Amino acid sequence: MGIREHVQLMKQSSPQMAASPLSLRDRALQSVKESLLQNKEAIFRANEEDLCRADAQQIAPAVRKRLKFDAHKLADVCAGIDSLLSLPDPVGRVTLNRELDAGLILRRVTVPIGVIGIIFEARPDALVQISCLCIKSGNCAVLKGGKETASTNKILFDLIHQAAVSAGLPESCLLQASAHSEIDELLECDDCVDLLIPRGSNQFVRYIMEHTRIPVMGHSDGICSIYVDEHADFRKAIPILIDAKTQYTAACNAAETLLVNRKIAPTFLPLAAKALAEAGVRLRGTEEVAQILRRPVKTLCDSSLSSGLPDGTIHSEDILQDTDFHKEYLDLILAVKLVDSVEEAAAHINRYGSHHTDCIVTEDDAAGEKFMSLVDSAGVYRNCSTRFADGFRYGFGAEVGISTGKLHARGPVGLDGLVTYKYRLYGSGQIVGDYASGAKSFHFKDLPLS
Amino acid sequence: MGIREHVQLMKQSSPQMAASPLSLRDRALQSVKESLLQNKEAIFRANEEDLCRADAQQIAPAVRKRLKFDAHKLADVCAGIDSLLSLPDPVGRVTLNRELDAGLILRRVTVPIGVIGIIFEARPDALVQISCLCIKSGNCAVLKGGKETASTNKILFDLIHQAAVSAGLPESCLLQASAHSEIDELLECDDCVDLLIPRGSNQFVRYIMEHTRIPVMGHSDGICSIYVDEHADFRKAIPILIDAKTQYTAACNAAETLLVNRKIAPTFLPLAAKALAEAGVRLRGTEEVAQILRRPVKTLCDSSLSSGLPDGTIHSEDILQDTDFHKEYLDLILAVKLVDSVEEAAAHINRYGSHHTDCIVTEDDAAGEKFMSLVDSAGVYRNCSTRFADGFRYGFGAEVGISTGKLHARGPVGLDGLVTYKYRLYGSGQIVGDYASGAKSFHFKDLPLS
Repeated sequence: MGIREHVQLMKQSSPQMAASPLSLRDRALQSVKESLLQNKEAIFRANEEDLCRADAQQIAPAVRKRLKFDAHKLADVCAGIDSLLSLPDPVGRVTLNRELDAGLILRRVTVPIGVIGIIFEARPDALVQISCLCIKSGNCAVLKGGKETASTNKILFDLIHQAAVSAGLPESCLLQASAHSEIDELLECDDCVDLLIPRGSNQFVRYIMEHTRIPVMGHSDGICSIYVDEHADFRKAIPILIDAKTQYTAACNAAETLLVNRKIAPTFLPLAAKALAEAGVRLRGTEEVAQILRRPVKTLCDSSLSSGLPDGTIHSEDILQDTDFHKEYLDLILAVKLVDSVEEAAAHINRYGSHHTDCIVTEDDAAGEKFMSLVDSAGVYRNCSTRFADGFRYGFGAEVGISTGKLHARGPVGLDGLVTYKYRLYGSGQIVGDYASGAKSFHFKDLPLS
Repeated sequence: MGIREHVQLMKQSSPQMAASPLSLRDRALQSVKESLLQNKEAIFRANEEDLCRADAQQIAPAVRKRLKFDAHKLADVCAGIDSLLSLPDPVGRVTLNRELDAGLILRRVTVPIGVIGIIFEARPDALVQISCLCIKSGNCAVLKGGKETASTNKILFDLIHQAAVSAGLPESCLLQASAHSEIDELLECDDCVDLLIPRGSNQFVRYIMEHTRIPVMGHSDGICSIYVDEHADFRKAIPILIDAKTQYTAACNAAETLLVNRKIAPTFLPLAAKALAEAGVRLRGTEEVAQILRRPVKTLCDSSLSSGLPDGTIHSEDILQDTDFHKEYLDLILAVKLVDSVEEAAAHINRYGSHHTDCIVTEDDAAGEKFMSLVDSAGVYRNCSTRFADGFRYGFGAEVGISTGKLHARGPVGLDGLVTYKYRLYGSGQIVGDYASGAKSFHFKDLPLS
């Protein structure tokens, strides 16, 4: 059977999966956890194979770290499962309970989305998290992980699938795709797959978005900005900036752009530039920013130029035009620009940002509210690092990804983003003709939700 | 300026529109209503022009009725505005209020979607409803109505736009597209338009869905089924069937398929066939259904064959195979099939239906719940007509359309479907490094929502 036939079977059993009681889904999660713990040695051995292959290919240390699945990562995913077990059922929540007329009750009830295809990077812990989120939310899932962790993925998937099915979930609740060619096959299954969640490089996510008619949830770029307002507390601004830029540079929620109010630029910029240079960050910026930074620290500039380290000034090749602010660096580089107001900052972010997560640093409540209201992003922050944009840090237990789309789920996507709803209408023989003729009329009375 | 330039301006002012207070949006709605009432004679005259043109083209009476905008329709749209005025603000609702740690508060708040393109059929009252829904929900909207009501659309749009702007909303909150060629231009504006809502013929909606990268909300087919269970009360089943099929045959929520439990088919089918024939409905069905209907009423069949009216039997050219159940008739035709169980009915509906609205007629609670849980449609009904699938009948005040997609909004789409959300995170200098190092930890405490 090819992917298509498998996914068709999955689609057919998705209503059974959707109708499964929470007790069954939680039992499956419990079995998954036990099975992972019981088979940890075999998992670690499989992971060793992947790591050996990676070492033979002289993979970068940062990437190798992500491939690794050791006792520490196992403990993390088990804690994740415990946290999912403690969360209430995302399915079957009544979000509207309305009596339309006597004996005619409308209920809007959350239901699983159905069949979800998730394509993710080489991170074995992601496979566990994603499958467990789908099990808890009653969704069927096709999983395709990065080939660099093929051995670890295989054993993890087999253990999870076996545990879920032996707990009583349908055989085709989960499916693993392993060949890269299967991705293109999956993109064609728009009659069976309800949602695709691609993770990974911008280029890859964009490829998916452009080659399927299935709705796609996710993000390609993560161009996050920090606006330092004229009423900013610099003691907050500098640590936030350093954290947002350097705490995990390759993350989509790392800051790429610094906007500074022109009024405070002469005082703030040199301080920020010094701190950023010390943290290893190279600055790019507009000519105006470069001029301000050229003034005070001539000697420091000269001394560190020779060492090749960032010196807090902006070099001629790093002068930016407005359109350059479309770029995501994912590196120790920060693009800097001056603006006159919250409005101008918001307009820049709405135009050149990626609607992911953007922050204002200010002590002025009115400026803070204005920024949060005008900036059209999934996350709008005040006085804290953009790195907080994450399902775990939002208390969602886990996330399947972060969405920069505006429809359905926005920002970090946890269990709530994996459900939709249906309307249930309970009648006792009512027909529309009676309401059209005026023989009967609606009285719309909202009832308690539970 | 072409549509693209207009829509770019609209995109730029959409944050202002989104940030506008409810009092301003409600004042705009009030002005719209007053302006329509004050200018009713001019509106009726413009509508006369459209009707004269339609008459010259010998348009069908049913279509002509939809083009008409008279005192009755005006009263309806004004009542619609009053109902929108009475509804609470869909924007700014806090749906999550969580303290992540001391002084770090996460709020999920509803916000308008942004810029919405709505392409709708020739119905002037739809133009008023749609613009008013967008104003109330803080969205900017590009409106393209059917050309058959071009004169009425023009005056209605001008009055609404003028009233909205003079009340204080941004100049580019609303835009009317009038040439058909502008639709294709609009489909290309995926960087400015957040959502498209096409209404009208299946073919047209499918064209839109296939020719844009903008998310599309709506439905092409409306293949609604009624399943008459073995424990059905026939006194409910027959009126529901007649209403769902004939109360407004051309509607997307009219029934196209009748599924009958095999156990009751010999008694139920002849009764249903007789009632449906009397209501002018022609039956199509499987060979098995035809055989049952052939038995008892031989003479009736013969007599009415000559008159050309439905006779309650199924003629040889009307015998259906399973795959024929994919068809939407929008006519006085009903496709009939027998099934053995709720499970088989649900499987048929999930496979051949269009995930719009489907109904079970049964007195058995367990069968009802099973059907509602297994059928994967926006609306799952028990013992009432599928024709209830409508924003007004759900008490939403109005609807922009009905969605058969699973993401974001499903079923009739009112104000709730025109908003999304953003996460606001309020901090006091927090950085992620402190949580990564263990210096601080989250305590996730949900606070009251208001």
